[in-house]
Amino acid sequence: MKIQLSLDRVSIPEALKICSETADMVDIIEVGTSLIKDFGNASIEAIAKAYPHKTILADSKTIDEGAYEFCSAYGAGADILTVMGAASITTIAACYQVAQEQNKDIMIDLLEITGEKLQQLKQFQNAIFCLHLPADKAGAGLEEMIHDNLKQMQGVRRLAVAGGISLQTIGLIARSGFEIAVIGGAITKADDRKVAAQKFRFALKEG
Amino acid sequence: MKIQLSLDRVSIPEALKICSETADMVDIIEVGTSLIKDFGNASIEAIAKAYPHKTILADSKTIDEGAYEFCSAYGAGADILTVMGAASITTIAACYQVAQEQNKDIMIDLLEITGEKLQQLKQFQNAIFCLHLPADKAGAGLEEMIHDNLKQMQGVRRLAVAGGISLQTIGLIARSGFEIAVIGGAITKADDRKVAAQKFRFALKEG
Repeated sequence: MKIQLSLDRVSIPEALKICSETADMVDIIEVGTSLIKDFGNASIEAIAKAYPHKTILADSKTIDEGAYEFCSAYGAGADILTVMGAASITTIAACYQVAQEQNKDIMIDLLEITGEKLQQLKQFQNAIFCLHLPADKAGAGLEEMIHDNLKQMQGVRRLAVAGGISLQTIGLIARSGFEIAVIGGAITKADDRKVAAQKFRFALKEG
Repeated sequence: MKIQLSLDRVSIPEALKICSETADMVDIIEVGTSLIKDFGNASIEAIAKAYPHKTILADSKTIDEGAYEFCSAYGAGADILTVMGAASITTIAACYQVAQEQNKDIMIDLLEITGEKLQQLKQFQNAIFCLHLPADKAGAGLEEMIHDNLKQMQGVRRLAVAGGISLQTIGLIARSGFEIAVIGGAITKADDRKVAAQKFRFALKEG
């Protein structure tokens, strides 16, 4: 399983500092929506340029103007972009087509979608589907919640998960078949971010 | 009725040039989502600074992190921000609260929402509700379509409309009780943008 580190609510220099402390321990660097909306493509460009060998996900949360937004953010250096599952199928299809043409990845954010919409989204077979776990429920009952969520996902090949993932839960998540775990505050808000990132990496190695 | 001019898919200098040609004729300048995602808050700041007496709408299309995004973009100079109706009620309520606290306006974008969700959204009484008309249907049948859409909107006090509005349809839209008509390409893609904007203004004056 890959670790995706999400960077949010910081300046570009602060984001680069966090990366300098943690990049060795993570597989994907996420330029969070807050960085994109605050600083635009410059945030993607700065991180992609500093880490040319890392996979860069830009959490664009596209919901309209699919082809334009995807061409623009891939052009800035993103390897993976996100589209909202709540967008129209036309918009998602436009994003998906740009991703396929450019041989890049697309993540569909499942925030606030219905079961019916999820079924429609399964046509996008190469997309990564990102499930959000309620952060406040990441303790007791997590295993059952993951099981229930995965049942709806039958037929989906690539799965990511976000939402309050901690050192206590990363092992269970890794064993549940996710391709990517998105980790934010548990690393970026740690007193020692390097050590926090190392602990996640070691927890995955130990299984 | 107010005219909102949407600026999209241009550089900041190009956006400022369009404004210099048209600002006198429009009531609200919209910093489009593409400008925000390409250039961040700098796009809002540049236009708000150049037009301190105009109402500036930033089409942030917030769908998560409501309070953060609204504080950030109001701070950059926006007077009105947009949140997706497809966002969770929690996120929309967070945006609404920031708007109320800062005595600013909020527009709810009704893209891809269900009738059931629309009913839930009516609790946000001071919000402007933005209806999207399919651009390709803005000819025949428009009157009926507006009538059908407005029926669902009963109880909504402030209404905006976007989607392929032309000189041929602006009169009907003004008579239908909308507070704001969002106009993009019909002005920004005209050979003479100043003249195009003047024609919309005159069409409204003549009723």
